[in-house]
Amino acid sequence: MATVTLTTDFGEGSSYVAALKGAVLTVDPSTQLLDLSHCLPPQNLVATALFLADAIPYFPRGTIHVVVIDPGVGTDRALLCVEWNGQLILAPDNGCWMSILRPTDLSPHVTRLAEPRFWRPIVSATFHGRDILAPVAGHLSIGVTPAELGPPVTEWVSLSLAEPVATPGGFRGCVIAVDAFGNLITNIRAEAVPPLASVQIGNQPVPRIVRTYGDAEPGTLVGLIGSSGRLEVAVVCGSAATMLGFGVGTPVEVTRNV
Amino acid sequence: MATVTLTTDFGEGSSYVAALKGAVLTVDPSTQLLDLSHCLPPQNLVATALFLADAIPYFPRGTIHVVVIDPGVGTDRALLCVEWNGQLILAPDNGCWMSILRPTDLSPHVTRLAEPRFWRPIVSATFHGRDILAPVAGHLSIGVTPAELGPPVTEWVSLSLAEPVATPGGFRGCVIAVDAFGNLITNIRAEAVPPLASVQIGNQPVPRIVRTYGDAEPGTLVGLIGSSGRLEVAVVCGSAATMLGFGVGTPVEVTRNV
Amino acid sequence: MATVTLTTDFGEGSSYVAALKGAVLTVDPSTQLLDLSHCLPPQNLVATALFLADAIPYFPRGTIHVVVIDPGVGTDRALLCVEWNGQLILAPDNGCWMSILRPTDLSPHVTRLAEPRFWRPIVSATFHGRDILAPVAGHLSIGVTPAELGPPVTEWVSLSLAEPVATPGGFRGCVIAVDAFGNLITNIRAEAVPPLASVQIGNQPVPRIVRTYGDAEPGTLVGLIGSSGRLEVAVVCGSAATMLGFGVGTPVEVTRNV
Repeated sequence: MATVTLTTDFGEGSSYVAALKGAVLTVDPSTQLLDLSHCLPPQNLVATALFLADAIPYFPRGTIHVVVIDPGVGTDRALLCVEWNGQLILAPDNGCWMSILRPTDLSPHVTRLAEPRFWRPIVSATFHGRDILAPVAGHLSIGVTPAELGPPVTEWVSLSLAEPVATPGGFRGCVIAVDAFGNLITNIRAEAVPPLASVQIGNQPVPRIVRTYGDAEPGTLVGLIGSSGRLEVAVVCGSAATMLGFGVGTPVEVTRNV
Repeated sequence: MATVTLTTDFGEGSSYVAALKGAVLTVDPSTQLLDLSHCLPPQNLVATALFLADAIPYFPRGTIHVVVIDPGVGTDRALLCVEWNGQLILAPDNGCWMSILRPTDLSPHVTRLAEPRFWRPIVSATFHGRDILAPVAGHLSIGVTPAELGPPVTEWVSLSLAEPVATPGGFRGCVIAVDAFGNLITNIRAEAVPPLASVQIGNQPVPRIVRTYGDAEPGTLVGLIGSSGRLEVAVVCGSAATMLGFGVGTPVEVTRNV
Repeated sequence: MATVTLTTDFGEGSSYVAALKGAVLTVDPSTQLLDLSHCLPPQNLVATALFLADAIPYFPRGTIHVVVIDPGVGTDRALLCVEWNGQLILAPDNGCWMSILRPTDLSPHVTRLAEPRFWRPIVSATFHGRDILAPVAGHLSIGVTPAELGPPVTEWVSLSLAEPVATPGGFRGCVIAVDAFGNLITNIRAEAVPPLASVQIGNQPVPRIVRTYGDAEPGTLVGLIGSSGRLEVAVVCGSAATMLGFGVGTPVEVTRNV
C-alpha cells in the first residue's frame, strides 16, 4: 500500500478535491490518501514552492506527492514526475517543486508524462490534476515505474524564489509567509543569523533574539529560528502580524554585531 | 478494507467531524476514512446536490459515502442507503443525493435505515450522522449488505435544482457556485453551449469563449466549459467574482449565433 | 495497522500539518492518519479541552491521538503519553487532555516522554509536535509500549475549565463555543436542565425548550440539549450567533420552574 499526498489551491469546500481523490482510488482503491493542504494561495507558485520545501523532506521514501497548482492547465506546458530522495512528485512543469532540491543533491530524474494509457480516458482542458496526475499516482501506487510514464527530460521551467541579498553588515530579506499564530516568517535561513545579530523588520527594531517562544514574557517582540529553519519575527503569546501590521513582502534586515 | 467518505456542513474546526470519524472506526477500525468536504454551506441542500454530482461519479465501485447535511435531524424524516453504480450513499431523505442520477440510469435501489442493531446504542435527537449513518457505514464496511439495513423504499423526497430554461435564441441560467479562483460556475451544461455562442452574465457581455484559461491573456474575461462540464465565466489569472462583483444567483444567458 | 489522529492549531494552509504527517509515516508508513482538526483557536487550551472531550470518547480502543496545542514549546514543560480507556493521547503537559476524564474514571496511567531514541534525531526548539510527538506516535503504532517511552508520572498540570455555578434557582454558566450553524453552545450539561426550566442568554429570554431543531418553526429561538450533551441556544434554520450578536463568554442562566 502506497501513500499518495495531495497539495492544491482548490480551497476546503471544493468538489475538485473530492474528484481528485476519487480519480486516484479508481486506479488503486488501496492507496492511503493524505491531504497536505488545499488552501495554498490560488495559482501562487512561490507560496507552493515554500510549502513543498517545508513539507516533502519530512516524508519517507516511497511517498507519492500530487501537486496541483497549475495556472497553465490546458496549454502545452508539460506534466512531470520527479524522483527525489526515493520520493516521487507529480506536478506541472512550472518550477514549484525545485525548492526541495538542496545544494548537495544530484540532478533529479525527471520524466515527462506522455503515456495516455495511464490517464483517465477523457482528458478535460481545465483539470489535468484529476484527469492525468491523479490516475498516474494511482498507477505508481500499484507498481508502475516512472520510466514507463514517458521520456526522461533534462530541462524544465525554473522558478525564481525571492532570496535574501548580502549587505555590508549582513543580509536583507523579506517576510515570505504568515502562519496561523501571526508569526512573520522570512526567507533568511538560520545560517545567516549569527547569535548576536540585530534584526529589523520594516522600520521596527526587534529587541530580542530568543531560542523559543517561551524564552520571553508574553507580549514581547522577538526574533527566532522557527520550525522551518528560517528567521521569524513573533510576539510571545500574541500575533506579530496584528501588532506590527506587517505581512508578506515586508523587508527584514539582519546585521552582525561587531 | 473499504473506503468511507465524509461530506458535511460542520466546518473545519468542528468536533462533530471528529466524532463522526470515531463512530465509523468504532465499528470497523480498518476502514479508510476520506474527507470530501466539511465546508458545505450550512444546511444548503442545493449546494450539497451540486457538490455530490461533481464528486461521487469519480469514485470507484465499492465506495461508501456518508453525507450529513441534515436540517431535518430529529424529525421523522427517513435516513436512506442508496445504491448507485456499485457505490453506496448514506444520507437523510432530503433529495440531496438525486443530482448524481443521469437520464440513462435505472431507478436506484434505496433502503430506509430501520435496524437499530447497526446504530450506536444511544441515539441523540440532534446528531443522526454520528449515531446512525456513521455506524451503519462501519457495518457496510465489514460486509453487512444494504438489504439488512431496513426495508426497500420506492419513494423519496426530491429536490428542485435550479435548471436553465430555453429561450428563443438559446438558454437562460444562473451562477450556482464560485470556486476558490473566483470562477463563476453556472448551471448551463456543455451541451447547451454551441462553439460560436454569445454569453452574457448579468448585464456584462463575455467577449471570448475559450477552451482553457491559458488560451487568453491575463486579465481577459472569458467563458469556457469548466472541470465539471458546466459553462463558467472566468478572468484569466484573476477573479471574475471580484472583477465583476457577481456571485451565486447572477443570471447568465447563452445565445446561438446565426 | 494503527490509527493516529492529529489535532492542532496550525490552520488549514500550514506546512506544519504536512510535516507532522510525514514525521509519523517516516517511523510507520502503514499508519492510518486522520485529521481531527487543525483549526483550533491558536494556543487556546480551554477550546482544546472542550474539543477533545467531544471527540476522543467516540474513538475505539487502540487509537493514538497526537495533540499539538503547545504554547510552552521549547521550555521545560513535559510531554506526556496518557492511557485512557484503551486509547493513547500524546500531548504537552498543559492540562488540555484532562477534560476527557469522567468522575467515575480511575486515575489514568501517564508517562513522561524521556527516551530520545523514539524521537527525530534533531529536535528543534519550536516544533516538538513534529520532532517528538509524531515519531513517538509512529513507534506506538508499530508496537512500542507506553512504558518504554519514559518514567510514569503521577502529577501533571491541570487546567481550569469554566464550570457553571449553582444559583438559588438553578445554574449560571456561559457560552463556550459557537458552531458552524451559529448555535451557541454552553458549559451547562444536560443533567442541569430539567424539562420545564427557563433559560436566559445575555438579557434575552429563550422562549422554548425543544428536543431537536425541527420541533419549532424556522426563525424560532430555542434551547435544546445538543450533540455534545450540553445546553445550546439555537435559531431554527438560522444563526443564533448572528441574530443575537452573542458569542463565547455570554452568560447563560437556567432556572427551575416551580
